[in-house]
Amino acid sequence: MSEQPGVRAHQGSPTGSAHKAAAWSTAITVTTDDRVFVRGVALDEAIGRDSFPGMLRLWRGDEATEDEAALLGACLVASIDHGPLSPSALVTRTIASTRASPMSGLAGGILTFGELHGAVVTRAMRILATAPADGDLGAWADASFERERAAGQRLPGIGHRWHHRDRRAERLLEVASARSDRRYEAAVRALAERVSRHTGKPVPVNIDGALAVALTSLRLDPAFGDFLFAIGRSFGLAAHYVEEQQRGRPMRTIDPTAASYDGVGIPGLNAQEDGR
Amino acid sequence: MSEQPGVRAHQGSPTGSAHKAAAWSTAITVTTDDRVFVRGVALDEAIGRDSFPGMLRLWRGDEATEDEAALLGACLVASIDHGPLSPSALVTRTIASTRASPMSGLAGGILTFGELHGAVVTRAMRILATAPADGDLGAWADASFERERAAGQRLPGIGHRWHHRDRRAERLLEVASARSDRRYEAAVRALAERVSRHTGKPVPVNIDGALAVALTSLRLDPAFGDFLFAIGRSFGLAAHYVEEQQRGRPMRTIDPTAASYDGVGIPGLNAQEDGR
Amino acid sequence: MSEQPGVRAHQGSPTGSAHKAAAWSTAITVTTDDRVFVRGVALDEAIGRDSFPGMLRLWRGDEATEDEAALLGACLVASIDHGPLSPSALVTRTIASTRASPMSGLAGGILTFGELHGAVVTRAMRILATAPADGDLGAWADASFERERAAGQRLPGIGHRWHHRDRRAERLLEVASARSDRRYEAAVRALAERVSRHTGKPVPVNIDGALAVALTSLRLDPAFGDFLFAIGRSFGLAAHYVEEQQRGRPMRTIDPTAASYDGVGIPGLNAQEDGR
Amino acid sequence: MSEQPGVRAHQGSPTGSAHKAAAWSTAITVTTDDRVFVRGVALDEAIGRDSFPGMLRLWRGDEATEDEAALLGACLVASIDHGPLSPSALVTRTIASTRASPMSGLAGGILTFGELHGAVVTRAMRILATAPADGDLGAWADASFERERAAGQRLPGIGHRWHHRDRRAERLLEVASARSDRRYEAAVRALAERVSRHTGKPVPVNIDGALAVALTSLRLDPAFGDFLFAIGRSFGLAAHYVEEQQRGRPMRTIDPTAASYDGVGIPGLNAQEDGR
Repeated sequence: MSEQPGVRAHQGSPTGSAHKAAAWSTAITVTTDDRVFVRGVALDEAIGRDSFPGMLRLWRGDEATEDEAALLGACLVASIDHGPLSPSALVTRTIASTRASPMSGLAGGILTFGELHGAVVTRAMRILATAPADGDLGAWADASFERERAAGQRLPGIGHRWHHRDRRAERLLEVASARSDRRYEAAVRALAERVSRHTGKPVPVNIDGALAVALTSLRLDPAFGDFLFAIGRSFGLAAHYVEEQQRGRPMRTIDPTAASYDGVGIPGLNAQEDGR
Repeated sequence: MSEQPGVRAHQGSPTGSAHKAAAWSTAITVTTDDRVFVRGVALDEAIGRDSFPGMLRLWRGDEATEDEAALLGACLVASIDHGPLSPSALVTRTIASTRASPMSGLAGGILTFGELHGAVVTRAMRILATAPADGDLGAWADASFERERAAGQRLPGIGHRWHHRDRRAERLLEVASARSDRRYEAAVRALAERVSRHTGKPVPVNIDGALAVALTSLRLDPAFGDFLFAIGRSFGLAAHYVEEQQRGRPMRTIDPTAASYDGVGIPGLNAQEDGR
Repeated sequence: MSEQPGVRAHQGSPTGSAHKAAAWSTAITVTTDDRVFVRGVALDEAIGRDSFPGMLRLWRGDEATEDEAALLGACLVASIDHGPLSPSALVTRTIASTRASPMSGLAGGILTFGELHGAVVTRAMRILATAPADGDLGAWADASFERERAAGQRLPGIGHRWHHRDRRAERLLEVASARSDRRYEAAVRALAERVSRHTGKPVPVNIDGALAVALTSLRLDPAFGDFLFAIGRSFGLAAHYVEEQQRGRPMRTIDPTAASYDGVGIPGLNAQEDGR
Repeated sequence: MSEQPGVRAHQGSPTGSAHKAAAWSTAITVTTDDRVFVRGVALDEAIGRDSFPGMLRLWRGDEATEDEAALLGACLVASIDHGPLSPSALVTRTIASTRASPMSGLAGGILTFGELHGAVVTRAMRILATAPADGDLGAWADASFERERAAGQRLPGIGHRWHHRDRRAERLLEVASARSDRRYEAAVRALAERVSRHTGKPVPVNIDGALAVALTSLRLDPAFGDFLFAIGRSFGLAAHYVEEQQRGRPMRTIDPTAASYDGVGIPGLNAQEDGR
């Protein structure tokens, strides 16, 4: 037997599909020898002129107003970090401690976003998209609650294991409502009301729910919800990766119960206030 | 043999290190029952007030000026997308085509950033950091060029396989220099000059080089360079993931040579101009 | 404001859950200062004595017979590679071409396993687990087919876009049936029969379906199905990563339609046979 | 402006390289309409006949003897798990706890393999490959030690933070030497000897060092070293993912210091022996 150059890597019959690759097209970006056009905008012209959230056109197709860009920016800020005890931050720090690469640390953190942490904004947006424009939000919330329960799931966007109240969510809802009609805020509050009735105590809208309200009012495809959160949070994951490599002993056992904060002082927050 | 509850998962001798986990601290974020403080700033107050790039303090520790935030924003915009033929976009689209999850698509794209694509800003920043404040940039460029060659590597930040000239890089250098002294721009131009002399034809500063100039002038730790690029580019990767799932036949063979652009029209760019 | 050492990273009220971490236990592995016991077996004694598939006990808890280990090994061999045009191999090769790290290439390939490629064995196992021990497999196949259609999904384990017939699947079914009762083989064939009736032409059991039969007959939890495939295929992904770095021009555009095979010659397979 | 179908996604000048994709070839695998040939072997014939480690030919090109396959199998068994406190297992379990997908959990664990954990076998193999066939191993060990120190690195394959003695490594060295000449074992022992002289106390060859000896004697390209370890360990990571999802409270805080073992009993190992 000898070498057989020229033999295709898939020896299909003429009707086989393996090496027939159809022409395809994209509406996102076209490049030339010296320029990159994103949704028709030359990046060289956008640099220094447009804000990063102003590039919302990349996701939505049409131009964003300044108000819309500001709201997307608020969503990124709201997602930016939740401290070193968040599962994704622990994963990124653990990867940093073995001296694996920065991109491994970032990708590992992103892979930690599951249906209970981070990757829940898209699902919340899909539910909000079904809210009636004019109609009984209470009945809609009841139906949504029952449908999720029947599927063995909880309503996304409501409640948090650490926060009885989450001021980030409240503030983001406020910002979103100032820039749009309050329809989706009313819808998510109806869901929270429904869950509260079920548990017998007030359960707040959480940050995922507030993000879903803001992003839905921006007319984004729900598919972008989890990506938006991931991009904002990546800023924080990077900080944890770098701090771990600079401060942490290599291969240390990271005990989440033994973490303290030694950063910039915060009035009204001190060691004595810790209940334990 | 019977079950042995109460047996530690590592049965170390008293001097073993396996389950001794030292106390540790972080200066990044502290959370309370209702708030999240990032570098001392309450996120609920920052939402709607601070821009996303204005959160530069999360990486640098100290407060950013408005000019600095604008420059970081310009870096994110410059990184945002490079079309569907970029290796990371092809990976994200391939993952989307198998209907693997959005976070898998994003993580896969990020893992594609290697020393030849994306993950090169940090290395360029480390070299720029060695440029003399007052001194012979030509001699420094010569020495840098020789050191990389001796290590079997190319100088990062110079040249691009597609672009003979890259207007994104030119524009970003312009924006960076308007907001800082021109020291790092001069340094990267000295490196490009050195490479051009070596190849015998003009080789431009590329987008990685321009990012390195901007981020170094922002006094960022070089470790953040690759993260900044990854965060900006994630915005584009998300668009490719969603477009592939909406337009592409599942499991299609993605042929990068068969891609066309059918988005917003661009004056002066049309089918006739294509040389082939 | 001054530094505040000693402040907990989560300032929870005494009822907060953030830094209360419950004791937990594992039944998998315990380590001592000089040994590692996996499901009660000392690894140092297993090395050189037990085969890799013989470590089935790690997944199942109880000891595997030699026949069972051989069947698990056959599943790993069946999964080992499907050539350079498979989506996961293309992703791993693309990552290799940017000179990102080997573990990035492997992880990227694994992230390509989605519901249409690779990560479908678990789902097929869950369906097979519902097949009646004594009963009408035809009725069960009808019901399974309809339930999947109602959910907008296809039955896993049946059909392949390239292979009209897949000898790997046939052989693995043969091996599995020789080592167990034929119950699950009969079930998967009933599913294929049902799909064939729907499409009007014969559709074969594919490799995912054959793996599901083999692994179910090994009494494995269906959750392990996708992992088994991923581990077997990782062997092939490693080969593609290394070959790409050794043969491929860095950052080359990888055109899946332009791949040929130049390895060990195969009688009856040559360039002339290629229909195009 | 109107749509422009037919415009290439990269508008290159005729000399641009963006959408020129060279023909390429692979020596690994070729597929036909009904078969898959790996290094010339039909997979359908290998299934049930060849062992998984017997597929060594996929990595090495030439056929493996039974002894060689057995040694590769011993390497996979030696790598299979190191308990729940290993960084990669903690990452996989953390990802499982957020209910992210199995492939995310596996990829995250693999991304944890860094130069201090897991991804060190390749480096150890590269050093062993420089050992003189006939010559002064002591002088070679001295030179290797000094070169690593000069580069700010430690010799890979020597010492472990938990194990003063590692019986897995001892056993694997024994198995490897029984199947090959003892040249590489002698080399790694010379390195351990050199490190011991430096630290003033005996430092053992660790599992990475033993793997490097075994894989080098199998004439594998060093590039495969880290992949081999990752594939073996993936078996254990899968067990941790599944156990976490079955036993662990969702989103629990995973405290590595609070883990106990409640699996199969092990004679001589009990709660009383724990020194604390």
